[in-house]
Amino acid sequence: MASHFADRLCDAVKTKKTSLIVGLDPIYSRLPPAITSHRQMNDEFDVAAAVDAIFDFCTQTMRIVGPMVPAVKINIAFFEKYLWDGIEAYYALITEADDLGLEVIGDVKRGDIGHTAEFYASAHLENPELVGLEDTLAPDAITINGYTGIDGIEPFADVADRQGKGVFVLVRTSNPSAAEIQDFTDANGQTMYEKIAEIVGQIANKPERIGKSGYSNIGMVVGGTAPEVTTALRRKYDKVWFLVPGYGSQGATAADCVRFCKPDGTGALINASRSIIYAYEKPQYKSQFGDDWKRCIEQAVIDAKVDLASAMQTLI
Amino acid sequence: MASHFADRLCDAVKTKKTSLIVGLDPIYSRLPPAITSHRQMNDEFDVAAAVDAIFDFCTQTMRIVGPMVPAVKINIAFFEKYLWDGIEAYYALITEADDLGLEVIGDVKRGDIGHTAEFYASAHLENPELVGLEDTLAPDAITINGYTGIDGIEPFADVADRQGKGVFVLVRTSNPSAAEIQDFTDANGQTMYEKIAEIVGQIANKPERIGKSGYSNIGMVVGGTAPEVTTALRRKYDKVWFLVPGYGSQGATAADCVRFCKPDGTGALINASRSIIYAYEKPQYKSQFGDDWKRCIEQAVIDAKVDLASAMQTLI
Repeated sequence: MASHFADRLCDAVKTKKTSLIVGLDPIYSRLPPAITSHRQMNDEFDVAAAVDAIFDFCTQTMRIVGPMVPAVKINIAFFEKYLWDGIEAYYALITEADDLGLEVIGDVKRGDIGHTAEFYASAHLENPELVGLEDTLAPDAITINGYTGIDGIEPFADVADRQGKGVFVLVRTSNPSAAEIQDFTDANGQTMYEKIAEIVGQIANKPERIGKSGYSNIGMVVGGTAPEVTTALRRKYDKVWFLVPGYGSQGATAADCVRFCKPDGTGALINASRSIIYAYEKPQYKSQFGDDWKRCIEQAVIDAKVDLASAMQTLI
Repeated sequence: MASHFADRLCDAVKTKKTSLIVGLDPIYSRLPPAITSHRQMNDEFDVAAAVDAIFDFCTQTMRIVGPMVPAVKINIAFFEKYLWDGIEAYYALITEADDLGLEVIGDVKRGDIGHTAEFYASAHLENPELVGLEDTLAPDAITINGYTGIDGIEPFADVADRQGKGVFVLVRTSNPSAAEIQDFTDANGQTMYEKIAEIVGQIANKPERIGKSGYSNIGMVVGGTAPEVTTALRRKYDKVWFLVPGYGSQGATAADCVRFCKPDGTGALINASRSIIYAYEKPQYKSQFGDDWKRCIEQAVIDAKVDLASAMQTLI
């Protein structure tokens, strides 16, 4: 863990030969019947049963995808719904992912200033050195919101540095209403997201943050659904990893997303969540593999990797 | 709870005759020795001991301030540091505050889009209807980050509406580096924070969101340290409650903060955290009350109320 986060990412992406990562957004009502029909997991309105089901689903999914992708992104919102039991499951999943050799991105989108930011950073990036939590790990990296400026980003970056971990700051999101705020433009033609990217770039480019791979441990979240912004950001911030949501269910194509990668395939993590973890809902997989939900997920990962690899070929 | 959040706030502010609210940012190393010398609470690095100490401190503090202020703001970052045990304590404190008749603002600064925002909203605003969590309450209102635009705000507003609760969206924060992003200005002279205020205003001003008091359940977080922005926002968004951080330790004066209030004293919640809850560290109180930390906190609340009331007199 003392190694550099960006270097670990590079190794993982090269080893798994893909920039695809899998996002875990577990929703009880969409879990495979094979899990929710289990006697102890068949009650959506019972916290213990629901959390057990979600944990089981995520663990099994990570075992399937683990050998094929460099990282998983765990979305904490889906665990916070179950309050403290959900949070315990979230951290337990991080340990499971670590055991599988996966890099783990905690998609927590925290953001605040001063002391509060330090406490969030400690909670979400620091492996706890607390009696009662000895075996607990924090994620390898988290997502944060940079609306409060440098004061709100540096406390996270500092903890990440000390722990060999990383931070991805929201720059341009993939939702329809993002433009109204993030494309807000000043008199010189600079947009809000470009301004935030500039601030993140300054933090990321500090020499002590650059690993052997040439990348920083501080990255940016930029949606794949806004491909027009991609090439400029990739060129301007050549030491930065991009975390790219929106591939698959949110509508970004492989061609849109691979623009964030460098020719060697590093530099971007392209996340697919629902299109992978709920693959068993899709007729194309259902018709092929029936109730074998794990085989559906496996095939969806294979297909997504091929899709991205083909798009990379076209790009190069 | 079916009542309108803004109406409850109005009643509470009028009953307690102040816009002052107390923020709970508990840091173990700053707790009064009377608590941390307790045999079972004297280990900062033991999760159970530390959480017990923090919970005890916050509960006792709320009992002191409860009769004097309309609301408390509980900052979840200071609980997340203790992972799931911390989260359990956070929710337990909400119940304690509710028993004391206090409105509770969960300072969680969540923000995301689509499904994720819905899950955050459910976790943080919906009283859980889950077996195993029957007696658990969510806060009366939470803070959120609006950088993703309307898509990221409306899911929270919708849950708040259904639950008789409220949302405060970050508009202008009180930290030094906020200006770089939030005062980013377009060609027409509109700033980023004014743009976000405009979006929040549209959401807040929907007639179905306005209570009998004339206020909306959707409000704005605007720091007291930027008084030049205050009067304009107060005038423009007359149906909105402002949550004002920065009074006390962060440097905003009473005169700066009361500009957010209407002449009848409603319309703003002025938060003081460290200047109240750590009052026993201050020479002015220590010399007067010695080790009686509770008396120090009580006096700090009295003093802050007088300070704000005097400033209000000057304003009117």
